[in-house]
Order: sequence, then structure tokens, then C-alpha cells
Amino acid sequence: MIQPRTFKGARDFLPEQMLHRERIMQVMRDTFKKYGFAPLETPAIEYLDVLTGKYGEDADRLIYRLNYKTGSKDEAALHYDLTVPFSRVVAMNPGLTLPFKRYQIQPVWRADRPQPHQGRFREFYQCDVDCVGSNSIIIDAEMVAITYEVLSRLGFTNFLIKINNRKILNGLVRYIGLDESFTQEVCRSIDKLDKVEWSEVEKELSEKNVSADSIHKLEGLMKQELTLENLKEELKDIDGCQEGIQELNQLFAILETWGIPSAVYKFDISLARGLDYYTGPIFETKLPDHPHIGSLTGGGRYDTLIGMFTGTEMPSVGTTLGLDRIFTAMQQLNLLEDVKTSTKVLVGNFGDATLESSLKLVAALRKNNINTEFYPESAKMKKQFAYCDKKNIPFVCIIGETEQQEGKIALKNMKSGEQTVVSLAELLDFLK
Amino acid sequence: MIQPRTFKGARDFLPEQMLHRERIMQVMRDTFKKYGFAPLETPAIEYLDVLTGKYGEDADRLIYRLNYKTGSKDEAALHYDLTVPFSRVVAMNPGLTLPFKRYQIQPVWRADRPQPHQGRFREFYQCDVDCVGSNSIIIDAEMVAITYEVLSRLGFTNFLIKINNRKILNGLVRYIGLDESFTQEVCRSIDKLDKVEWSEVEKELSEKNVSADSIHKLEGLMKQELTLENLKEELKDIDGCQEGIQELNQLFAILETWGIPSAVYKFDISLARGLDYYTGPIFETKLPDHPHIGSLTGGGRYDTLIGMFTGTEMPSVGTTLGLDRIFTAMQQLNLLEDVKTSTKVLVGNFGDATLESSLKLVAALRKNNINTEFYPESAKMKKQFAYCDKKNIPFVCIIGETEQQEGKIALKNMKSGEQTVVSLAELLDFLK
Repeated sequence: MIQPRTFKGARDFLPEQMLHRERIMQVMRDTFKKYGFAPLETPAIEYLDVLTGKYGEDADRLIYRLNYKTGSKDEAALHYDLTVPFSRVVAMNPGLTLPFKRYQIQPVWRADRPQPHQGRFREFYQCDVDCVGSNSIIIDAEMVAITYEVLSRLGFTNFLIKINNRKILNGLVRYIGLDESFTQEVCRSIDKLDKVEWSEVEKELSEKNVSADSIHKLEGLMKQELTLENLKEELKDIDGCQEGIQELNQLFAILETWGIPSAVYKFDISLARGLDYYTGPIFETKLPDHPHIGSLTGGGRYDTLIGMFTGTEMPSVGTTLGLDRIFTAMQQLNLLEDVKTSTKVLVGNFGDATLESSLKLVAALRKNNINTEFYPESAKMKKQFAYCDKKNIPFVCIIGETEQQEGKIALKNMKSGEQTVVSLAELLDFLK
Repeated sequence: MIQPRTFKGARDFLPEQMLHRERIMQVMRDTFKKYGFAPLETPAIEYLDVLTGKYGEDADRLIYRLNYKTGSKDEAALHYDLTVPFSRVVAMNPGLTLPFKRYQIQPVWRADRPQPHQGRFREFYQCDVDCVGSNSIIIDAEMVAITYEVLSRLGFTNFLIKINNRKILNGLVRYIGLDESFTQEVCRSIDKLDKVEWSEVEKELSEKNVSADSIHKLEGLMKQELTLENLKEELKDIDGCQEGIQELNQLFAILETWGIPSAVYKFDISLARGLDYYTGPIFETKLPDHPHIGSLTGGGRYDTLIGMFTGTEMPSVGTTLGLDRIFTAMQQLNLLEDVKTSTKVLVGNFGDATLESSLKLVAALRKNNINTEFYPESAKMKKQFAYCDKKNIPFVCIIGETEQQEGKIALKNMKSGEQTVVSLAELLDFLK
């Protein structure tokens, strides 16, 4: 006999979770479409070289490889995110109408150490919106607006979308006395700040041969609550920084015009995002009251990624909504009602004498798009009611011999216990 | 530079395909729920031993393995179908309320030779409905009814749901003079009959040491168009067969009561289904006018599979709707309209002078749940119209300086070319 078990870091979703997850995904799809994004899907399996060399080496190590043509150029792997596959699609389809706005909702895989309580798994869903072919900061603003709208519609009230710009971080690296080639390393270290203490980041940077002086200067910047205005003054002599600051000012102005409450977003100099491919504004959403729950969303502008396939840069920006983090957070914040089924009515089964009438009732209900179960065995009424109670099915219809003779149906409200006898027309009217 | 390419046998779905695929999946979900099935999801990655030994050795060879703890008991693989993972879930959750009716829509993976024109891929979607915990033939009938309803709602008119019973095939194996232990082998060979000639099946059976006499008897049965009535007479002395025939007669009676047209389903003695785990009624849907397109759906009763995990048999029945086959068939039968976007209106962008008014219009439209794009760059009107034409966006809203002064909006119908000037309230009324 085989021991039934789930792969470590992966999960089953039973109906009581899936009904919510389907609703969350529907809210996302509706919102993405409202902003003009269209669905795309790419395979889970990609050739390994399509994936590696874009995320940084920490992430590359977490890519799951298949036992398939190992070592050859056709070695295959499971996608690590949806951004790189999207970039591949854009590179392979030069005839796409630009700007191309797409969303993509699929699982991704990372050979990571699972931390279920923080919503960190090896197999989890990403829900991505990306736009390729536009430099306009309006698209960056749409990413923030979509994040705000999805989270608000799901019932979150206290969340914070942190915003920074890789252009500012590039300048900052020069400001603390380093060469710009250190940017990725510094960003990857800073990115860990919401998980580890400064001392650990300090240690990591010094192992990367960053001087004590530079680290000290960096610490000063990270530990202040710098506004964009402060920073504009502080970094006024650093090329590129001013451009980054101006972009964020434009972004904030658009968000204000759109009526996004200023309490939900904030410039944060310490936001870095770990992945190598970002080049402009970056965003990440946290729950300030629940710091142990990881980021709910994250994204940014990545103008050079597609060029890794085509040789030509293409402006791109996107964000990921982490379905699993969002779901974990909604569970912990009690934002999920208790649901077990979408069945509205159970038709009871009391054996051959009334089977045909009952089957016909089932067909009539379904024909009227009413979610209906027929109890498959002839069983005691008590047992059938118990089934409804366990599954929270709100109504039961019964055709006993009396009802059958009279062409009627007994309708029981499982919540109130009330029972009435109705005609089919009355029943359909009532349930619809 | 990395050559962008998709894994062989896998595909990207661009929006013009995905908009249809999402609609097809929604039709399925709605239908599944109407019959009382609730959503479930299981991870793509399973431990290898959870998967192997259930499908038969031909299928076991097609399971994709990860490069993960190879050779150990924790070796991991990608699921081959959704039925075995579902059985694992049932085995791991003894507290489930029975009967447990679930649906599951996810990709599966098979290291097969891809045949795209026939809708055969290495990564493809299965859409499963299964019920565990009931012996009732009513559930088997629901499988056929769901198949009928989904395919009809998608616009298919000429399809045939073939129905047989493994109990009949078990008896048949004895009838042709073989031991019942040959059933799986014989079923796997017969199953190939819609792809290969009889001579090839004959050759395969004789290699499996089936006598010429048995093969001849089998050929006689397969090549007649046997009705259930004929068969009842022919196999009257064979144990088990009569039970199988009676089940199918009950099944057909329920389908008739439910008003499923008799033209869409048919008993077919040559339907075998290749997988080892079936034990009772089996079903498969074909398009008689398009024999090169593989089965659109397939399933059956499998009462012993869950027992492989728990040691206790549990009655189970289910069917798979093959999204990719169905989608391929709909393309070939021209059942898909030409769609490129779900965007209803594009708001034009004509630079800073009217930017704020335009952005406010965009926010107002979206607030009213109208799918709206804002052209991200200030560009010539001609270019923005061309974008709408390519994407079939039906309406364009323009706020030029005149409209801005008057607090109005110019609305252009892209199909008729007609242009009117309206207030925001009029616009919202019209578009909603």
C-alpha cells in the first residue's frame, strides 16, 4: 500500500478553500480586464536556458529542473515566475500590437525552504499584470491602482504599497562611493531587510567587499524616513537619481488624480526588490500590522529583460499579486466567510416509487440554472438532512408519494426549519 | 543572446485564444456547480510512488520526473492526470462528507509524442468531475449529462458519447476463452482500435499469447454493431456480464428521463479505455465527422483506486473533459468568434493640456466597471485609432481642448465611424 502524502511545500485546496480562491481570482480577472489587460498563458515547462541568468544567482538555484535531457541545450525546467516566460512570448511574437497589456494567473515553482505560516511555498500561484511597449509612467500608476483596487475589493483595509525606483538606488550606490556594478548585489542585500536585522545585511555587504564607510553611509540613508523631497536635495549631484525622483512624483500625481487614498502608498528608500531584472519604479505591498506575512504583491519596471532574447530593449512594467499570500492573509484576518458548497438545493431520494418524479424535478431545477444535487441513494430522511447540514445546503426538496399524487413538492428551509408545499412553478420562482 | 522557444509539445496561449479558453472553463465550472460539484485543486508535483502503478505500464513510462531526490522514496514527478491525485486527497481526508463531488481544472503532463493537429500535447488541461462515496448509477448518468450539457452549450451539435461497462468486458474476456487476468491487456489493445487497424490489435494480442481462436471470437464481437439486447442474449451464461448490462440499461433510462437526446449517446462494445483503474461503466466522446480529432471527454467508474492508498475500497466515478481537444475541435469547426480584447473603450491621450481631464474620465469609466484603456503616450489621433482597429476596441472617447472647456466628451463608434459629443452621465448610461 502506498502512503498518501503531498509533496513538501505544496498543498491541496479543498472546496472550502477553493470556492474562495476562485472568487479571489475572479476579482483579479475582472479588475485586470477593467484596466485593459487581456489573458495570456504559457506552459509550466520551459527550456532551462530561457529561465536562467535573469533573476540573479540566488534565484537561479531555486529553479526546479526536470529529469529530461539533463546537461543538453534542451534541458527542461519549471517556470520560476511569469515575467520571464511573458518576455519570451513577446520576443517570439514580433507582430504583437503594442502596447501589449496582458494578465497571467498560473502556479510557479521554487525549490525553496517552505514556510507555510508566512505563506511561503514551493508551488504557489502568481497573478501577473504586465504591459510591454510603453515608457509611460501612466502604466506604472495602473499597476499601483490595480493593486489598490484588488486588495480593497477583497476586504483589506490596512495595507501599504511601498514604492521606490531602481534609478534612485543606482544613484544611491554611487552616492555611497561604490561603482554602479554593485547595484544588484546591494539591492539583493537591502531586499532582505524586512526579514533580517541590519547587522546581517552589514555582514553580507562586507563579505561582498563593500567598505565600512560605504556601509555606514548606506545605513544612514536606510534608517532615516526619507521623503522624496529630502532625497532630491540630498542626492542633487547624482546623475540619474533626479530622473528617478521625477518619475515617482509624476506617478504620485496620477494616483492622486485617480482618487487612490494617499494612506495606501508611500515612497520607501529601503524597498529594493531582489530580482536582477528591474530598471525603474518598483512596488511591493505589505500588511504593516502583520509583518510576519510576506509581501502580498510586488513588481516594477524592467526595460532590458526582453532585450536578452531579442537584442532590442523594450520598455516593460508589471506587478505580481501573490494569490497564496493574499489567501493566507485573508484567512488570518478573518476576511473569509465559511462556505462549503455552491449547491442551492438538494432533492431527496426516497426510492423507486418517486424516483422518476424526483429525477424530473432535478432536471427542471438544473434547466433553470439552479445548482442542484440529487441524493444518489435512497436513504432515511434524517441521513439526507444531515448531509445538507454538514455541507450548508440551504434548501431541500422532497417528493413523497403524497406530493407525487398532488403534483407538488415539499420545500424545506434548512436554516429556519420551515417547510411548505409548493408547485414546480412556485418553487422555480422562489429559488431563482 | 538566448533563443526564445517553447518546450516541444507545449504551447503559449495568446489573448485571442485565452479569452475563449477562459469562457470554455467558465461554462464548465458553471455546469459542474449546477450538478453539485465543488472545486478542488492539487499540486502539480506529487511524489512519484503516489502516481505509478495505477495507470498501467504504458502510461507510467510517460510520467515526467523531476531532477529531485532521484531514486529515493521522495522522488518527485508531475501529475499524469487528476484522478489519481484526487484519490490521494480522498485517502488523506477521512473526514470528508460523502458523497464527495468535486471538479478540478488543471494542466497535466505526459512525456508523449506531440501531435498538435489531433490535439495531443505534452502539457494540456484536464477538466475533471468525480464523485466518491456512492455506488448509485445516477452519478454515472450525471457524468454523461454533464458531458452533454457542456458540449451543447459550447455549440457542438454532432458528437457521440460512447458507453460501455468494464464488467461486460471482463465477461467478454472469459467468453472468448481467456482468464480474467487478461482483461487489462485486452482492454489496452482494444482501446487502440480507433487509432489503428484490427490487424495491428490482432498482432499485439497474439504477442500477448492470446490464442488465434480467442482473437477470432473477439474480432467477431468487435465488428458487429451489438446492441445491449443482442449482448444480453449472447453472453447470458457469463457471470458479471448481466450485471454490467443491467447497469447500462438503468443508466440509459435515467438519461431518457432527463431528456438527453438519444442521438448523443450509444452503447459501444469496442470502447475499452486504456487505463487500468476502471471497474464499471466507462464513457468517451468522439466527433463522428472528425475522426482524426481524439476523444473530447473520457471517464468511468473506478471502485478500487482509492483502496490502493487506504486498503478499503470506495466507489468512485468521474469523467475528464479535455479542454485542449475541445478547443482544437472548436477551432476546426469554426465555433469560435474572432475576439482580441475585452476592452470596451479607449480613452485617447493628447498631451498635457487635457491629461488630467482624460485621466479623470478613465477613473470614472473604470469606477463604473467599464473595461477601459488609456492610450499611454500622447500620440497622433490616427495612431490611436489604428491601435483600436487592430484590437477591435469598439469605442473611443476623446477630450480635446474644446470638449474640456465645455465639460463634454467626444465619443466615436469605431465600427460605424459615427461621432457624437456627450456628457459624462450620458456616456456612462450609454456604455453600461
